[in-house]
Amino acid sequence: MSRHTKRILSYYASESPGCLANLYRLLEHGRLGGTGKLLILPVDQGFEHGPHRSFAPNPEGYDPEYHFKLALKAGCNAYAAPLGFLQAGAAEFAGQIPLILKLNNSDSLATGGEPCSAVTGSVGEALRLGCAAIGYTIYPGSGERNTMFEELRELTEEARSVGLLTVVWSYPRGGNLSKQGETAIDVVAYAAQIAAQLGAHIIKVKPPTAHIEQEAARKVYEKYQIPVGTLSERIRHVVQSAFNGRRVVIFSGGEAKDEAAILQEIQGIKDGGGFGSIMGRNAFQRPMDEAVALLRKIQDIYAA
Amino acid sequence: MSRHTKRILSYYASESPGCLANLYRLLEHGRLGGTGKLLILPVDQGFEHGPHRSFAPNPEGYDPEYHFKLALKAGCNAYAAPLGFLQAGAAEFAGQIPLILKLNNSDSLATGGEPCSAVTGSVGEALRLGCAAIGYTIYPGSGERNTMFEELRELTEEARSVGLLTVVWSYPRGGNLSKQGETAIDVVAYAAQIAAQLGAHIIKVKPPTAHIEQEAARKVYEKYQIPVGTLSERIRHVVQSAFNGRRVVIFSGGEAKDEAAILQEIQGIKDGGGFGSIMGRNAFQRPMDEAVALLRKIQDIYAA
Amino acid sequence: MSRHTKRILSYYASESPGCLANLYRLLEHGRLGGTGKLLILPVDQGFEHGPHRSFAPNPEGYDPEYHFKLALKAGCNAYAAPLGFLQAGAAEFAGQIPLILKLNNSDSLATGGEPCSAVTGSVGEALRLGCAAIGYTIYPGSGERNTMFEELRELTEEARSVGLLTVVWSYPRGGNLSKQGETAIDVVAYAAQIAAQLGAHIIKVKPPTAHIEQEAARKVYEKYQIPVGTLSERIRHVVQSAFNGRRVVIFSGGEAKDEAAILQEIQGIKDGGGFGSIMGRNAFQRPMDEAVALLRKIQDIYAA
Amino acid sequence: MSRHTKRILSYYASESPGCLANLYRLLEHGRLGGTGKLLILPVDQGFEHGPHRSFAPNPEGYDPEYHFKLALKAGCNAYAAPLGFLQAGAAEFAGQIPLILKLNNSDSLATGGEPCSAVTGSVGEALRLGCAAIGYTIYPGSGERNTMFEELRELTEEARSVGLLTVVWSYPRGGNLSKQGETAIDVVAYAAQIAAQLGAHIIKVKPPTAHIEQEAARKVYEKYQIPVGTLSERIRHVVQSAFNGRRVVIFSGGEAKDEAAILQEIQGIKDGGGFGSIMGRNAFQRPMDEAVALLRKIQDIYAA
Amino acid sequence: MSRHTKRILSYYASESPGCLANLYRLLEHGRLGGTGKLLILPVDQGFEHGPHRSFAPNPEGYDPEYHFKLALKAGCNAYAAPLGFLQAGAAEFAGQIPLILKLNNSDSLATGGEPCSAVTGSVGEALRLGCAAIGYTIYPGSGERNTMFEELRELTEEARSVGLLTVVWSYPRGGNLSKQGETAIDVVAYAAQIAAQLGAHIIKVKPPTAHIEQEAARKVYEKYQIPVGTLSERIRHVVQSAFNGRRVVIFSGGEAKDEAAILQEIQGIKDGGGFGSIMGRNAFQRPMDEAVALLRKIQDIYAA
Repeated sequence: MSRHTKRILSYYASESPGCLANLYRLLEHGRLGGTGKLLILPVDQGFEHGPHRSFAPNPEGYDPEYHFKLALKAGCNAYAAPLGFLQAGAAEFAGQIPLILKLNNSDSLATGGEPCSAVTGSVGEALRLGCAAIGYTIYPGSGERNTMFEELRELTEEARSVGLLTVVWSYPRGGNLSKQGETAIDVVAYAAQIAAQLGAHIIKVKPPTAHIEQEAARKVYEKYQIPVGTLSERIRHVVQSAFNGRRVVIFSGGEAKDEAAILQEIQGIKDGGGFGSIMGRNAFQRPMDEAVALLRKIQDIYAA
Repeated sequence: MSRHTKRILSYYASESPGCLANLYRLLEHGRLGGTGKLLILPVDQGFEHGPHRSFAPNPEGYDPEYHFKLALKAGCNAYAAPLGFLQAGAAEFAGQIPLILKLNNSDSLATGGEPCSAVTGSVGEALRLGCAAIGYTIYPGSGERNTMFEELRELTEEARSVGLLTVVWSYPRGGNLSKQGETAIDVVAYAAQIAAQLGAHIIKVKPPTAHIEQEAARKVYEKYQIPVGTLSERIRHVVQSAFNGRRVVIFSGGEAKDEAAILQEIQGIKDGGGFGSIMGRNAFQRPMDEAVALLRKIQDIYAA
Repeated sequence: MSRHTKRILSYYASESPGCLANLYRLLEHGRLGGTGKLLILPVDQGFEHGPHRSFAPNPEGYDPEYHFKLALKAGCNAYAAPLGFLQAGAAEFAGQIPLILKLNNSDSLATGGEPCSAVTGSVGEALRLGCAAIGYTIYPGSGERNTMFEELRELTEEARSVGLLTVVWSYPRGGNLSKQGETAIDVVAYAAQIAAQLGAHIIKVKPPTAHIEQEAARKVYEKYQIPVGTLSERIRHVVQSAFNGRRVVIFSGGEAKDEAAILQEIQGIKDGGGFGSIMGRNAFQRPMDEAVALLRKIQDIYAA
Repeated sequence: MSRHTKRILSYYASESPGCLANLYRLLEHGRLGGTGKLLILPVDQGFEHGPHRSFAPNPEGYDPEYHFKLALKAGCNAYAAPLGFLQAGAAEFAGQIPLILKLNNSDSLATGGEPCSAVTGSVGEALRLGCAAIGYTIYPGSGERNTMFEELRELTEEARSVGLLTVVWSYPRGGNLSKQGETAIDVVAYAAQIAAQLGAHIIKVKPPTAHIEQEAARKVYEKYQIPVGTLSERIRHVVQSAFNGRRVVIFSGGEAKDEAAILQEIQGIKDGGGFGSIMGRNAFQRPMDEAVALLRKIQDIYAA
Repeated sequence: MSRHTKRILSYYASESPGCLANLYRLLEHGRLGGTGKLLILPVDQGFEHGPHRSFAPNPEGYDPEYHFKLALKAGCNAYAAPLGFLQAGAAEFAGQIPLILKLNNSDSLATGGEPCSAVTGSVGEALRLGCAAIGYTIYPGSGERNTMFEELRELTEEARSVGLLTVVWSYPRGGNLSKQGETAIDVVAYAAQIAAQLGAHIIKVKPPTAHIEQEAARKVYEKYQIPVGTLSERIRHVVQSAFNGRRVVIFSGGEAKDEAAILQEIQGIKDGGGFGSIMGRNAFQRPMDEAVALLRKIQDIYAA
C-alpha cells in the first residue's frame, strides 16, 4: 500500500474493514493508483439533461458500454452512473473497474418545486452489480433538504453495514440561494461540511468562486481575513472545511470547455490540496481518443 | 433459440436467469416468436377511460375472457391488463400466453392535480397469477414524477428478485409540458432514456412527432442536425436514446383509426428499428375477426 | 351446492379455496341461500350519520345486539358493520350468520376536504371476530381516490391470503362530480368497473339514474344507443360493466322510503340481473316485525 | 366478583382474557371497587397547559410522586398520565394502583392548524411500566381526524393483542365546530358513538350541554322528542349512544370550580347512568387533604 | 459511588441497568465526577452555523480530533457531536470519554418553513461508535413539533432498549413565538416540562429571561407570585418544572461572550440548583489553553 493510501485510510479508522477495502480499491486503481488522488468518470447526464443534450456531441455515448470502455482506457479510478447504465455493462466488465451506483437522480422534463432528486437505485442493487460505493446527491439550501439528508443517512448506514462506501454530490440549490450563490465560497465550504457531518466518505462539490453569499459568513471572512482570492486558496478552504483534510473532497468538471481552461482549473485544485476530480461531459462528449488524452493530462497534473 | 432472441437476451446479461427466462418466453411466443419483434395486447382502458367508452364499440369486450381469446387467436406475444381483468381469466387460460400485470392505473372520473396513477396490483399478485412481467406507468414531467420513479424502483427490484420482467409505459405528462409536447421527439426520446435508466426491461412510448418541446434540446437537434423528419427517423432516434438499441422499445397504437393509417405507422416503426407494438383499442374495439386479421397484418410487417 | 352458487363460484376460479368457501357461505346462507341472490344488512350509519339520526326512529337500534337479531330473524345472507358494533356481538352470535367487517368509515362531524374514509379496522380483526369478508368504501372521483385505491389493494391482497372476501362500496363522490352525477348511469357503471378491476369480489353501488355526467360518455351512449331509460336497463348496463356479469354486483337501499317504492326498486334490480341488495336504514329504522316482513318481501321478489 | 363487575365484563365477551383481567382490575380497585363505577385521576395538564398553569396552585404537584400518592390515598380506580410522569414513579409504586399510559398529548405553546395530538408513548412502554391500559385522545370534527382514528385503530389492535385496555378521550374540536358545539349534546353523543365504533373499551367525554350544533341532528331531536333538558337526561342519552350502555362511559371534571358545583354535576352523571368520572385539576390543584376529601365525597355519591 | 450520583440515579428507578450504567458513567466522569454536576462539550455548530462561522476564530477546530482533545484536557463529563465529527475520532479516542451522538441537525443555508431538524444519525450508529447517549433537538412551539415529538419518542424507546440515555435539546422556536419569547421564563419552564414528559433523561434548555410570553401564564405567575426576578430564581423554577428536580436539567452557554459574564451566569445556574452546563462556542472558539482554563473555572464553581 502506498503511503498516500495509508494516510487516507487512517482518517477512516472508525469504519469497518469492508469500507476500508473499497476505499483502498478506489485509491489504488487506475493511473492515479497510490497517489492519493482520484479521477472518476460520472455519466448521469442522460438522466439529468436528456439523451440528446448529453450524447449528440459524441453519439457513441448513447451506448452504455462506451463509458465502461472510456473509463478503462483512460485509467480512471472509478465509473459512476445510474442503475440502467451500470447494469447494461456490469456483467460484461465485471471486476475491471470500481463502480459507483448513483442512487438518486433528477431530470429536466419537470420544473418547479424545491429541488429533490428521486431515489432510483438501492444498496441491494449496488451489491448485486458488484459496486464499490453508492452515490447520492444532496441539495443543501433546498426546502426539501431534510428529506434528502434523512434518505442519505439511511442509505449510508445500510451501505456501511455491507461494506460499501458513500460518495455524496453536495450541490447547494433552491430556497433563497441565488444562482451565483450556488458556487459561492462560503456556500461550497458549508456544503462540504454538511456532507462530512452526514457521514460521507467521499465528497464532491463544484469548484467555488470568490463570491460570498451569506452576510453572516462575509463578516467572518473579513474579520479573520480568510484568503479566497485564488482558486487554490478557495480549494484549500473547502478541504479545510471538510474536517481539515480528513475527508476526501473531489471537484466536478462542470460544463464542456476547452482544454486549456480545464487543465488550469485542475492545477488550481491540485495546488489547493484537493483530492481529485470527477469529470463527465468534458470526457464523454469528446471523441474517445481526445477524451483519453485529456484525462491522462489531468492525471499527470495530479500525480506530479 | 433464434438468433434474434439470442442477441436481445445478450443485452440483459446482468439479469438473473429467471428474468432471462421470462424475456425468452415473451420473445419466443406467438406468431412473432423468434423474430425479435413483439406485438402485445393491452386492455386497461376499462379502468382508464371507463367501460362504456372502451367496450361499447364491441360489447364482447365487457367480458374479461374475450381478451384472452383475442390475444391467443391473434398470436400475440403477451396480454397485459390490470388485476381484475387478469384474475378473471388467469385460471381458465393458465399457461397459454405470457401475462403482464399492470400495477398502476388512472381513471377519468377524477380530474385536476398532477398526474399520478394509483398502485392497483403487486408483485405478489403477479406471481400468484402466473405472470411473466409487471407493467408500470410513469409520467415524466409530472410534479409527482418522483413518487412514480421511486415506486417503480422498488417494484422493479422486487420483481427482479423473483424473476419477473418490468415493462414501463413512459408517458410524459403534466408540469409545464404542452399537450403537443407529450409526443414531441425530444420528449419521447428523453422518456425512453429515463425508463431505461430506471431499469426497465421493456419500454413503451408513443410514436413521436417532429415537434421539439424544449429550447435546450432544439439547439442540440439543430447543431448536430439529428434527422427527425420522418417517422422512421424519429423511431430510430428513440431506439438510440434507449441505450443505443440495447433495451427493447415498443410503441403504442393510440386512438382507434383506419387500417391503412395503422399499417403505415407500423411500417415506419419497423423501418426505424422499433421492437414492436402494443395495441389495444385498435384491436379489441373491432369485431374479433377483423381484429385478428389486422393484428396478423401487423405481425407480417414486423416479421418481413 | 345449488346450480346458481356453482355458476357464481365458477367466475372466481383464480381465487383460493378459502375465498371460495366464504363466497359459498354467503351465497348459501339465509332465506336466499342457493338462489344466487344476496340480501345483506349493513349498519354503519351510527358512525357515518351519528347515533341520533340513525337510531332515534327505532331506539332498539342503539343496542349492537339488535342488529344481529334482526339479520338472523330476517334470514339475511350476512351482516356488515364497523369494528365496535361487530365485536359487541361477535361472541354472543358466533357462527350464526356470515359477518362483514367494514374496514373504513366516515363521519358527519367534520366537513370539507376531498372525501376519504378513515381505516377503522383490519384484516386481523376480521379474522379474530370470525368474519367471512372485509368491506371497504372507495370514492371514485375524489382527489383522495389514489389513497383509497391503494389501501384497498393492500387490504384485498392481505384478506385474500387468509381466505377472506372483499366487498367494495363504490360510491363516486368529490372532485368535479356534481351531486346528481354521483348516481349518473355512466358514473355508476364506471364505479362498478373500477371496483372490479381493483379485485373486489362483491361490488356495492347505488341504483343509477338516467342522468349522464360525462360528455365523453354521453357521445358513446348516443352513438351506440345503449338503453338506460328504465331502472332494469340501467341495472343491466351496470352488471355488464362489472365484467359482463362475472362479478357479484348488489345495490344499496338508500334513504328511508315507503314500502311500495322499495319493492318497485327491488323488482327493477331483479329484472336487470342485479345480484341483490344491501339494505340498512329501510330495515333497522322500522320496528323489528315490520322490518322482517319487508325484508322477506324483498327476498321473495329476488327468489321468484 | 361483584355482580356489577360481572355484568360489565359480560359486555366485552369478544375480548381476550388479558383485556378482561385488566378491566376487572380497574373495576375492582379502590373505594369504588365492585360498584360498577370508576373514579380515575388523570394528570396530563403539565404537558397540555404547561407546568405553571397546572401546578402553581398546589406546587407539590410538580413532583411526579405526588400524584401516585394522591390517587392511592383517595382510593381512585386508576391513575393516568403521559410517559414522563408515569415512569418517574412506576417503579416506586409498582403494582399499587392500575396505571393508564396516555399515548398522545398536545401542548399549548404551538397554535394554529387543525388539532391533532402527538404520539408520545407506545404499547411497549405501557407494558414495560406495568400499565393496565393505554389512553388516547381523538378530536372528532378535526381536519386531522382520520390520522387520529387510524393511529388509534393500530394502537388498539396492538394493545388488545397484549391484553391492555384502551381508554379513549373523545373530544370534538376543530373543523367547523363552534366552541359551544364542542360540548353540544348531539356532538358529545356522536363522539361517544365514534369512540365505541373504533373499539374503545372505556370512553371519556365532557358533560354535555343542552345546545344542539348540527341542523340535521336538531330535526331528529325535535321529531322524536328526545329529552335533553337536564344533565341526567343528557348523560342518559350519551350512555345510550355508546351502544345502549354496553360500553363504559365516564365524564371529565373540566376546569377548577367549587365543591358544590362539582358534587351537583356528579349527582347528575350518577342519575343519568354514567359509569363515573375522571377528575384532574379539581383534584390535584387542591391541597392533598382537601382533594382526598372531595374525591371521597364523589365516590360516596357514585356508590350510593 | 458518590452520594450525589446515588441520589440522581434513584430518580431513574424505572430505567434498565444499561441506562443506569450510562448515567453513572456521565456523572462519575471528568473533573466534576461524583459532584452531581455536569459540564458537557457540544460541537454541532459546524453543521448548524457553517464551518467558517464556527471554526474561523480558532482554526484548530476544523479538525474533528481537536474537540476530543479539548474535552479530555478540560475534564468534561462528555462530548456531544453529529455523526461525521464523532466517527472521525471515535476509534482514536475509544473509551476515553463518554460520547453523545447528536441525532438531528439543522443548517443555516435553507430558510423559511417551520423549524424542524433533519435526522442525521441513528441509535445503531450510536452503538457502533460506543456512545453513552443519543441527543435530539425539539422545537416546542413549531408547527412541526408533532413530527419531532414522535421521532424523539421512537428514538428514545429504541435507545432505552439498548441501554443508551437520551439527552434532549428543548429549544422553543417557530409558530407564534416571538424571538424574545424563545427564552421567556414561562416558555423555558414549559419546554423543560415537555422534554421530561417525553421521557428525556437529561434536558438542555437555554438560561431563561424574566420575560413572560403567554398571557395565560402571566396570570398564574402574578396570582401565585412565583419569583422569577433573578437568574437563580428562574433556574430554580425551571428545575422545579422538570419534575421538581427529579430530572437532570442543564443549561447552554449561548453565544461567545467574555469570561466574567460567563462565570456570573454559571454562578446563577449553580445557585438555582441547575445540574450543570453544556458549553460549545465559548469553549472551542478560544485557544485550547484559554478554553481549558475557563472550563476549569466553571467546574470549580459547580463543585464548590
